[in-house]
Amino acid sequence: MPRLVMKFGGTSVADIDRIRNVARHVKREVDAGYDVAVVVSAMAGKTNELVGWCREASVIHDAREYDAVVASGEQVTSGLLAIVLQSMGLPARSWQGWQIPIKTSNAHGAARILDVDGSKMLRHFEERREIAVVAGFQGMHEPTGRISTLGRGGSDTSAVALAAAIGAERCDIYTDVDGVYTTDPRIVPRASRLDKVSYEEMLEMSSLGAKVLQVRSVEVAMVHNVPTYVRSSFDDPAAPNPGTLICGEEEIVEQQTVTGIAYSRDEAQITLRRVADKPGVAASIFMPLAEANINVDMIIQVVSYDSATTDITFTVPASEYERAKSILDSNRAAIEYEALQGATDVVKVSAIGVGMRSHAGVAARAFKALSEKGINIRAITTSEIKFSVLIDEAYTELAVRTLHSLYGLDKA
Amino acid sequence: MPRLVMKFGGTSVADIDRIRNVARHVKREVDAGYDVAVVVSAMAGKTNELVGWCREASVIHDAREYDAVVASGEQVTSGLLAIVLQSMGLPARSWQGWQIPIKTSNAHGAARILDVDGSKMLRHFEERREIAVVAGFQGMHEPTGRISTLGRGGSDTSAVALAAAIGAERCDIYTDVDGVYTTDPRIVPRASRLDKVSYEEMLEMSSLGAKVLQVRSVEVAMVHNVPTYVRSSFDDPAAPNPGTLICGEEEIVEQQTVTGIAYSRDEAQITLRRVADKPGVAASIFMPLAEANINVDMIIQVVSYDSATTDITFTVPASEYERAKSILDSNRAAIEYEALQGATDVVKVSAIGVGMRSHAGVAARAFKALSEKGINIRAITTSEIKFSVLIDEAYTELAVRTLHSLYGLDKA
Repeated sequence: MPRLVMKFGGTSVADIDRIRNVARHVKREVDAGYDVAVVVSAMAGKTNELVGWCREASVIHDAREYDAVVASGEQVTSGLLAIVLQSMGLPARSWQGWQIPIKTSNAHGAARILDVDGSKMLRHFEERREIAVVAGFQGMHEPTGRISTLGRGGSDTSAVALAAAIGAERCDIYTDVDGVYTTDPRIVPRASRLDKVSYEEMLEMSSLGAKVLQVRSVEVAMVHNVPTYVRSSFDDPAAPNPGTLICGEEEIVEQQTVTGIAYSRDEAQITLRRVADKPGVAASIFMPLAEANINVDMIIQVVSYDSATTDITFTVPASEYERAKSILDSNRAAIEYEALQGATDVVKVSAIGVGMRSHAGVAARAFKALSEKGINIRAITTSEIKFSVLIDEAYTELAVRTLHSLYGLDKA
Repeated sequence: MPRLVMKFGGTSVADIDRIRNVARHVKREVDAGYDVAVVVSAMAGKTNELVGWCREASVIHDAREYDAVVASGEQVTSGLLAIVLQSMGLPARSWQGWQIPIKTSNAHGAARILDVDGSKMLRHFEERREIAVVAGFQGMHEPTGRISTLGRGGSDTSAVALAAAIGAERCDIYTDVDGVYTTDPRIVPRASRLDKVSYEEMLEMSSLGAKVLQVRSVEVAMVHNVPTYVRSSFDDPAAPNPGTLICGEEEIVEQQTVTGIAYSRDEAQITLRRVADKPGVAASIFMPLAEANINVDMIIQVVSYDSATTDITFTVPASEYERAKSILDSNRAAIEYEALQGATDVVKVSAIGVGMRSHAGVAARAFKALSEKGINIRAITTSEIKFSVLIDEAYTELAVRTLHSLYGLDKA
């Protein structure tokens, strides 16, 4: 039998009625001849409740204990869905991360999947045609036998890694949206659903602010070449829409130059004024931040002609803004800067498309279009298949709409 | 180091503040020099919530999936208590049933503990003086690797079995009452707390309606001779009361004839009128009930002098009343009875005491005292260390008070 992994998030399993709806989606695929593994998240709100208790117990807490507490949410959903499937006459059983096992690193709270042993599950498929209902988001650190979790959104990664392990034909990620859009439809009503998007583009979109899939899950899908669909659990189970296929570039015949526009408000800008322009100054700024695990993104150094100083601007995640400032402050003597200026009312807008590789001047057109609308660009980064601009947050919608039109993405 | 098992029920861990209070009790014993294993139940209300979801998912459900869902409640508490203990500077870690492992039968939902492997936990005691926080109520069926639960109140049994496995000096069961009383203080305000009670007496009290400890836990304590205290988690952690010690008879110097009065409203009476008085009739009544797993308790057969028929009266748990009636109805042709009469407004009142063994006429005094109060006895059973009478439920309090006074149990 061909095999299929289906994944349902927290809003799709928020109560028993919705779990019944999930079971109908599963039944459709079983009837179509698939051996199915279903990966489930915790019921909506449950993970927050569990995390809240951990924080109330102690602000600083052992990540291993946090994992034992939080992983219970998925355990509950896996058992409940197995019960509902059985009540529909379908053989099913729940699998916890440690039962499969899904082996992870010991980075509790944000563990990485090291290996998924699909052998027991495959035996159950063969012997019983039994649906595997898998608790997402969790695994086990094998040497210690402790429960681990993969970090927020980790169930997507559980699903894709499991699909790779059991050689599934594809992995269907069911969410509350019906696919991947050219941009956020709340900002651009003329955004359209993409039929296909390449792994690399999806990786950039997820990294740059599109929240539809966890970045790590796209990486795993790309490495193992798992065709992955994003589709809606709120579609009629009898006749669902196909959603968006995330696949290899070679599967996409008509490649657009730009596939999508993403934006992220989770940015903060830091500018160091009149930094001594001497060898090693960049290291003296960025090493302490790296050691503190603060991710520095866009970096601009304004070359200075008239003096021995320079201005350096960069971005950090908004959540790390205060910590970054205090680290720079305590390293002020070593760095030798005159002033630190910062802003959190900034947004990063990005255009992504593998077609950029073969088209010159894609970013230049954007800079021109944005300046024509009076939007000031604070910083720019580019890579082979995307470019990003940092602008004032007030211009977010205008910038996204401008780029969406510019690259011909507006729905007819 | 001497070892100690402490067990806290759902009301004792109902929220983070109460969990902190539990941690203070644990700290006291650690400071006193014990290596401590703490067994915890789910937060009050959580098990009912989880059971409710299972029922909503399907009225009839796979007990293995029920166990996966319901066992999550204790998993949460174990992690939270470990976090709180750590925040107080005490090394601690959580242990799920499968991690220890606590090996059980495959009677999911009401599994029996087959073996507790204390070796890993003992190594953690020796190497780290680390408090073991154990999820109660749960274990693993080893051949299948599935999570099992012991049935309601099973955390008491987890605690006592663990105490036996790790050679604990004693097992302290913390509840919302401060010990075992001569009877229910809500009915008899002059009931007093017992300092000591023997395993056998406690076993009878638990079986006969005193809800302070699960029957199975007392059996395990008796078989492995684990001194077990019942005490209150609401006492001041700095100066708690000792509670009641459940121990071997030989430890109790001044033995009372009657130690306690128990009562159970969970009884239903069934009377079969004019049953054919022929060999094999008892089997024809009680075999079908036994096959349906219905526990028959008191049996009275009124000997008939004047005809070939007899009346047979017996009791079943109130929850099995309807099922028992329908089984008897469908076997009516084989049994040959004229009429079936039943009542659920009955109560079983029992007096328990190992002293009965050496004192004659203990029960006879009770029958006289009850009849003097105008209480009609519907049925009687006796054993070596207890007797029970079945009476109209309306007389419950009067009968309990009468017997409590009769045997000199009223507090001075």
